[in-house]
Amino acid sequence: PWQRATYDFFLSKDLREELQKKSFAAQQMIPGNMLPQLERYHSLVPLDTNHRKSTTCFNYQSWLYKAKNSKNGRLYALRRLEGYRLTNEHAIQTVMKEWKRIKNACIVTVHEIFTSREFGDSSLIFAYDYHPLSKSLQELHFQQSSAGPRFKTGSISEETLWGYICQITTALKAIHSNNLAARCLELSKIIVDGKRIRLAACSILDVVQFESGAQKPLQELQQEDLVKFGKLMLSLATNQLPSHLNVQTALESLSSKYSQSLKEAIAWLINPSAVDDSKSIEHFIGGIAFQMTKFFDLALQESDDTKFHLSRELENGRLARILSKLHAINDHPCLLNWSETGDRYSLKLFRDYVFHQVDKDGKAYVSLGHMLTCINKLDAGIEELVPLTSPDNQSSLIISYRELKNMLERSFNELQKHSKTSGAP
Amino acid sequence: PWQRATYDFFLSKDLREELQKKSFAAQQMIPGNMLPQLERYHSLVPLDTNHRKSTTCFNYQSWLYKAKNSKNGRLYALRRLEGYRLTNEHAIQTVMKEWKRIKNACIVTVHEIFTSREFGDSSLIFAYDYHPLSKSLQELHFQQSSAGPRFKTGSISEETLWGYICQITTALKAIHSNNLAARCLELSKIIVDGKRIRLAACSILDVVQFESGAQKPLQELQQEDLVKFGKLMLSLATNQLPSHLNVQTALESLSSKYSQSLKEAIAWLINPSAVDDSKSIEHFIGGIAFQMTKFFDLALQESDDTKFHLSRELENGRLARILSKLHAINDHPCLLNWSETGDRYSLKLFRDYVFHQVDKDGKAYVSLGHMLTCINKLDAGIEELVPLTSPDNQSSLIISYRELKNMLERSFNELQKHSKTSGAP
Ligand SMILES: Nc1ncnc2c1ncn2[C@@H]1O[C@H](COP(=O)(O)OP(=O)(O)OP(=O)(O)O)[C@@H](O)[C@H]1O
Ligand SMILES: Nc1ncnc2c1ncn2[C@@H]1O[C@H](COP(=O)(O)OP(=O)(O)OP(=O)(O)O)[C@@H](O)[C@H]1O
Ligand SMILES: [Mg+2]
Ligand SMILES: [Mg+2]
Repeated sequence: PWQRATYDFFLSKDLREELQKKSFAAQQMIPGNMLPQLERYHSLVPLDTNHRKSTTCFNYQSWLYKAKNSKNGRLYALRRLEGYRLTNEHAIQTVMKEWKRIKNACIVTVHEIFTSREFGDSSLIFAYDYHPLSKSLQELHFQQSSAGPRFKTGSISEETLWGYICQITTALKAIHSNNLAARCLELSKIIVDGKRIRLAACSILDVVQFESGAQKPLQELQQEDLVKFGKLMLSLATNQLPSHLNVQTALESLSSKYSQSLKEAIAWLINPSAVDDSKSIEHFIGGIAFQMTKFFDLALQESDDTKFHLSRELENGRLARILSKLHAINDHPCLLNWSETGDRYSLKLFRDYVFHQVDKDGKAYVSLGHMLTCINKLDAGIEELVPLTSPDNQSSLIISYRELKNMLERSFNELQKHSKTSGAP
Repeated sequence: PWQRATYDFFLSKDLREELQKKSFAAQQMIPGNMLPQLERYHSLVPLDTNHRKSTTCFNYQSWLYKAKNSKNGRLYALRRLEGYRLTNEHAIQTVMKEWKRIKNACIVTVHEIFTSREFGDSSLIFAYDYHPLSKSLQELHFQQSSAGPRFKTGSISEETLWGYICQITTALKAIHSNNLAARCLELSKIIVDGKRIRLAACSILDVVQFESGAQKPLQELQQEDLVKFGKLMLSLATNQLPSHLNVQTALESLSSKYSQSLKEAIAWLINPSAVDDSKSIEHFIGGIAFQMTKFFDLALQESDDTKFHLSRELENGRLARILSKLHAINDHPCLLNWSETGDRYSLKLFRDYVFHQVDKDGKAYVSLGHMLTCINKLDAGIEELVPLTSPDNQSSLIISYRELKNMLERSFNELQKHSKTSGAP
């Protein structure tokens, strides 16, 4: 036990890199930019990747910023609608109360809605969860050009499409069963992170159209969700933007690349129901249950896998702690008046044994693997014995990792007693 | 950035504890026990928690051991059937080839099947994935007594039951669609780990009954799977062992505690189909699709959550590495003839700054938070400046973390060049 090779000591290259990039993106700041502080949200960084002035989604020009919440230290994605004037005080509260009930893996959670004058206009702000390095479906699958978005060459695999379908279905089920509608089912307002997608602009139109005459009955909005969902998938499957779609032709063309069941699912969403006028997401779920089961399995596998990585990585946390303690003990000026022959002498010889090994010819033997194995054993406090020798080779002693661990804890506690602040986590 | 408080530096208490317990269980050994080595599997530890001599599941007495595979260093759960005599050489190969295709989150993967005489008899051995600290459904939900298993008081929540149903359904879908049957759907052969369950004894009966007259047609075995699945759930829902069940009475009694849809699902599995004689797991999936969608969402949420923890924990791996390097550099005898005034002098002052801080009165200031923040900054190599002072307060210099990081890498590389083994991972 505790004897692991270095190669599997640190996390597998890929997942590690992905998470490190995300962590870097999350921590990125733009010092000295001129963006204001919005209530408790500070250190704003723009997330928009284009400067198109589009108002298609919300009828208002919108901007997106990463920001840090000073209350809890967490990062948020703030969506700002420029020039929005709130006319009904209840709009925000009512909408927020309804969306507070929604917690779903395929919906970006909205935490707070407020107005602000900090930008010099009157803005409406939505604070969402921040998901580092997410792209929109539009950015991922459609090529950007100066003349506006164009479709990318290369088609999307059937499995990826089913993955999207199952996730959007999960989101719509949560939304519709809470008597709400998603409304903003646009390619640019669904974000992708690997194979995971999330609806990224829920609740906005509920506020904007709160009391306008444009507000349609819920039942109608939910039916529209299903049709938009279908067109969205059709658009992805045929590499054509929704505005350019000829629905019937596009549906027919599916047969050449995709299975009959995919085509039927998309057609069901788009076409009016044959029996009566109302379809529901529950009906749809029944039809795609087989696929749902498959992605349930894949989600569980991913979760198991991540937990496995996590359990390996956990040990590094303990190692970092114990290595810090060892650093603090060795040669600490405040410990100099203590007996050099006791615990600390042994710990110093142990330090040499772990980090300063030399071979017979006096050459350094440097192996991170050796270091980490020893520190792992020290942390575990096992009974295994370590042969320690003084640098002049005059004296030597044999001591167990368990005893060494006790010595380290004793010395560090001693040091903390001498310290004004108790710094143990 | 990089300025985190200590409290969220190490993983949240609960998940951390769970994973540590598992890691401990995985590493546990019993030195000096008399169990043999089986081909590449060594260090066997018995996993059976009772000494009942039951042959109900496989017609052979069975034993379970944790073991380490010397080829890849991984742990496995070995199931041994005592006194089994292989009569057909093809049985093992054929069965193994079929089950190799199955990779499912709700099935314990079987990797290898072989015979052994190391126990002094002729045994049949199945090597499964090892899932530390798993209990069987029987152990979890039914009280053990000297007279055999009895039902536990306290009933299982509807949500837990649906969770089990969705997971077993996922497993059966994978198995049936690969032209196989689960067969061994017993309370004692399904293992639980939190809310996750897995079929733990697949493929065994396929070998044991490979050519016996008892081998039924696949279609019949799959129908039996569905009925057993239903009885299993009924048994859990009513706290009665399958052998004690009066099916009709038990089904009736469900209404008082559980929803109509749960009752219907269980009844569908147990009762023969009204239309014709064959039901299928696909039919069943269509019926429980709504629940499947819910657990798909929960699985994704868990996965997201674990990834988030992992990304925080990842940094500790880098910290452990950089701390080890710092230890190796400081006072290394092989570096003593190098210029003490160059890189290493700065690094030594930095070491004092991080680990040996004292206040004006010469008292130690000990804070793990301070140490880890500094090491994080060193690892990131940021531009922030550090004021360093010599121990005698005579000289001082100001230097950036970026420069310090370069110095550390330089010194460590230098040390490695002097070393016979290149120990970088
Ligand atoms: N919650 C979020 N967390 C992190 N990134 C996000 C989040 N929501 C959106 N993004 C990303 O921020 C960028 C800007 O989003 P936005 O919705 O403004 O897209 P857009 O292409 O600029 O569309 P529009 O023209 O409507 O503004 C996109 O790359 C998007 O993927
Ligand atoms: N793959 C596995 N990894 C880890 N633990 C397992 C695995 N499979 C089973 N276990 C656990 O090992 C123990 C023994 O399993 P076993 O199937 O022998 O149960 P049992 O109660 O002894 O039943 P039986 O009387 O049929 O032997 C149980 O606690 C079970 O949860
Ligand atoms: Mg934008
Ligand atoms: Mg047993």
